[in-house]
Amino acid sequence: MDRRKFFRNGSLFTLGTTLINPFQLAANDVGSDLFESSKKAKNIIFMVSDGMSTGTLNMADLFLNRKTGKGSNWLQLYKDNKIKRALMDTASASSIVTDSSAASSSWGGGVRVNNGSLNVGPNGEEYLPIWQKFKKAGKMAGCVTTVAITHATPAGFCINSKKRSAQDDIAEMYLDLGFDVMMGGGNNNFDPAVRKDKKDVYAGFYAKGYQIAKTRQEMLSLRNDKPILGVFDEDAVPYNIDRINTPELKSKIPTLAEMAQKAIDRMKDHKKGFVLQIESGKVDWAAHGNDIGGLIYDQIALDEAIKVAMDFAEKDGNTLLIITTDHGNANPGVIYGKDANTNFDSIQKYSHTNEVILNSFNNSTTVAQIREKFEATNGTAVTEEEAKILLSYYNGLHKQEDGLYNYKKLPFKALAEIQQKYNSVGWISMDHSADYVELAMYGPGSDLLKPFVKNTDLHYLMLEAAEVENKF
Amino acid sequence: MDRRKFFRNGSLFTLGTTLINPFQLAANDVGSDLFESSKKAKNIIFMVSDGMSTGTLNMADLFLNRKTGKGSNWLQLYKDNKIKRALMDTASASSIVTDSSAASSSWGGGVRVNNGSLNVGPNGEEYLPIWQKFKKAGKMAGCVTTVAITHATPAGFCINSKKRSAQDDIAEMYLDLGFDVMMGGGNNNFDPAVRKDKKDVYAGFYAKGYQIAKTRQEMLSLRNDKPILGVFDEDAVPYNIDRINTPELKSKIPTLAEMAQKAIDRMKDHKKGFVLQIESGKVDWAAHGNDIGGLIYDQIALDEAIKVAMDFAEKDGNTLLIITTDHGNANPGVIYGKDANTNFDSIQKYSHTNEVILNSFNNSTTVAQIREKFEATNGTAVTEEEAKILLSYYNGLHKQEDGLYNYKKLPFKALAEIQQKYNSVGWISMDHSADYVELAMYGPGSDLLKPFVKNTDLHYLMLEAAEVENKF
Repeated sequence: MDRRKFFRNGSLFTLGTTLINPFQLAANDVGSDLFESSKKAKNIIFMVSDGMSTGTLNMADLFLNRKTGKGSNWLQLYKDNKIKRALMDTASASSIVTDSSAASSSWGGGVRVNNGSLNVGPNGEEYLPIWQKFKKAGKMAGCVTTVAITHATPAGFCINSKKRSAQDDIAEMYLDLGFDVMMGGGNNNFDPAVRKDKKDVYAGFYAKGYQIAKTRQEMLSLRNDKPILGVFDEDAVPYNIDRINTPELKSKIPTLAEMAQKAIDRMKDHKKGFVLQIESGKVDWAAHGNDIGGLIYDQIALDEAIKVAMDFAEKDGNTLLIITTDHGNANPGVIYGKDANTNFDSIQKYSHTNEVILNSFNNSTTVAQIREKFEATNGTAVTEEEAKILLSYYNGLHKQEDGLYNYKKLPFKALAEIQQKYNSVGWISMDHSADYVELAMYGPGSDLLKPFVKNTDLHYLMLEAAEVENKF
Repeated sequence: MDRRKFFRNGSLFTLGTTLINPFQLAANDVGSDLFESSKKAKNIIFMVSDGMSTGTLNMADLFLNRKTGKGSNWLQLYKDNKIKRALMDTASASSIVTDSSAASSSWGGGVRVNNGSLNVGPNGEEYLPIWQKFKKAGKMAGCVTTVAITHATPAGFCINSKKRSAQDDIAEMYLDLGFDVMMGGGNNNFDPAVRKDKKDVYAGFYAKGYQIAKTRQEMLSLRNDKPILGVFDEDAVPYNIDRINTPELKSKIPTLAEMAQKAIDRMKDHKKGFVLQIESGKVDWAAHGNDIGGLIYDQIALDEAIKVAMDFAEKDGNTLLIITTDHGNANPGVIYGKDANTNFDSIQKYSHTNEVILNSFNNSTTVAQIREKFEATNGTAVTEEEAKILLSYYNGLHKQEDGLYNYKKLPFKALAEIQQKYNSVGWISMDHSADYVELAMYGPGSDLLKPFVKNTDLHYLMLEAAEVENKF
């Protein structure tokens, strides 16, 4: 069969015959149709570490390696030579530095839109999101995330919205469109007690036959023969490091890996297959906050979900697994210096995010209390002088910090600068970067991947891998 | 033949049979000895952008794309699907963040040594450098660089030295060992008028039959049937952006691409082949200085040399081309913001490095002169307030900055922080990072590359690709 006839013209799809380097072809006289017969992807699992710079992938691997003797599952796939890789250009229509909604739209709609939009072009053009295309092709479709399920990255695969901020509307669109598994945070957008319009969106999901889980235990006991809505917190779920070290969170909030496993279990026996997005959304938030404990442990949350997805994909044999990020953020890295190793290893003693630590201070906190808090949560007390610097952000002596997810105007930047002396981790900023990013694929369809792609190319690659004609 | 018998045991060399992903193998029933017969690499060209973080590769590509409509040669190889890629772990024996000498030694000696050493272990063990191994196997060997030819990266392929700083000794070792082409800066280490011991090392090279070039014109007119020493400056040669915009430098100093072409021309007809290292060494220095004009244009200098090397390798068909970096540095990147595009594009107006600009100021420079200087060299004047900040580093009001290559204690960091407002480029520090780095290969032997490697693996990969038994 000629799979290409299904898809748009484009350089991405001209490589089938040249995957092996020319030397090898010449040396071996391998037929040029070697890869034409690659299997069809019945299922697609698309994993996103939101806002993951190279250093984030790398530090999580180093951290695990130094702590446990075994690196990340992500890079183990490389060591085992199981995947194909690419660099991905993540730009949006409006900027060389994308936001998460335009980034997800590039995958979801196959077209670059302006930052802030979800599959809606500058003149209001709507591009049908890819999870809807796959639903039309008979597949089940779902998303699981650690941020609100109505947040930009899942939304970009599912719906059209001029503004990513219209999360209340997005919750209703999910209901109308009938996705099969949607799990994450975001009670704010479903609960009549919180929504501006007082609408009970949960009631709509119940009426449509959904099972609704609001705790880890509820989720784990859901049946696999009915659609699922899981909403485990008001907005995002807690950071992984805080969840791990807070018993009540640990019992209430499922891990990303657990959500991923449930989503797979719910959809894996569907005859026409399924598509699933799995996002670790707060890797991005932690990067915005220069919050290294948050960053590394939420990257690890994704990494544990990679094991779930890969175990399934290897056993299944018909699943294309894509693992990537939507853009870099803050380009963190371990900085040279004679104490780089021990400083970096000190992060192993962290028990909470900077967010939790900074939220515990107020204008009547003392220097001694601040120092004790760091002793307890970072393994090392900050100096008196450093405690005074932090305090100045609470008692009005220093202008408060802003920041995208810094609702409470906490001094994240000031703290990261203090911590750098102790952990050797640096950050270029508190926002996204234009870096080209890491992308890995496993399974049928991965042979379509070139070493350098634009984010939009993935839209068409997924359709081609699944042999779903793009005629919607 | 069983190529493996030549080499050490190690996971790197067990992949010959698993290069294609398992699906494809299963689907096509390809024989497992498909890649056994891959051609032998007669020649190896090893290209290093010293201290290149992901963002450096990416910004040079973006810069070229936005300025000229065509991206970098490096990433064009990816778009054309001509290469194999890997992530490389760059650690040294002493630290997760390497210096350039330990990094080069990992490739050169196949063993991780402590930072600061060149192929000498902590107990004085010496590891035979790979260019010496290839010389013993009958090949020609050389290095070209934009820093002193006695600097860490070329030295790590060529010699043993407890200390990288022993550059005078290294110049003499080159003479004793008789490398075929050595070009870069470093007159300080050859010239009796500058060397501490007053030794005339040039005289030794003349006596051994070398041609010696000290200018671009002299180099271009050298014969290709005699060995070559090219020394074009006291220490490193000038940054590329300064060279381009300074007529006397442009006529005196060859480009890295010109040095690469001459080195290839000198060695390409040697019956047993050649090995050549090509380093853009001041990408690292520019990162140490957070000097974006220096960084991008020196990355472009490497990129132009990539074209020279690739043109040769494609035509030749027997050349393994390796393109990589020894470690990240400063993790620069373009930061999100509404003016990110225009800010980043403003770098197109830069005519000189921050080094040249800052060297032009002294304690009697006026605020107006500083502002004029930036108007002339950056296309935008800094504000009065910003000029005063810079001035404070010259008139004693502010403590001077330090830094690895900041011999004159110029305020590089202060300036980069000011420029960030105008060019949207951020930096995590002024030093190396632990990031895993980009690695690309083309040609015979590239099939040996796994998606994730340690820096030391390349030593053995080169020997195996060239089928040179490691019995020295």
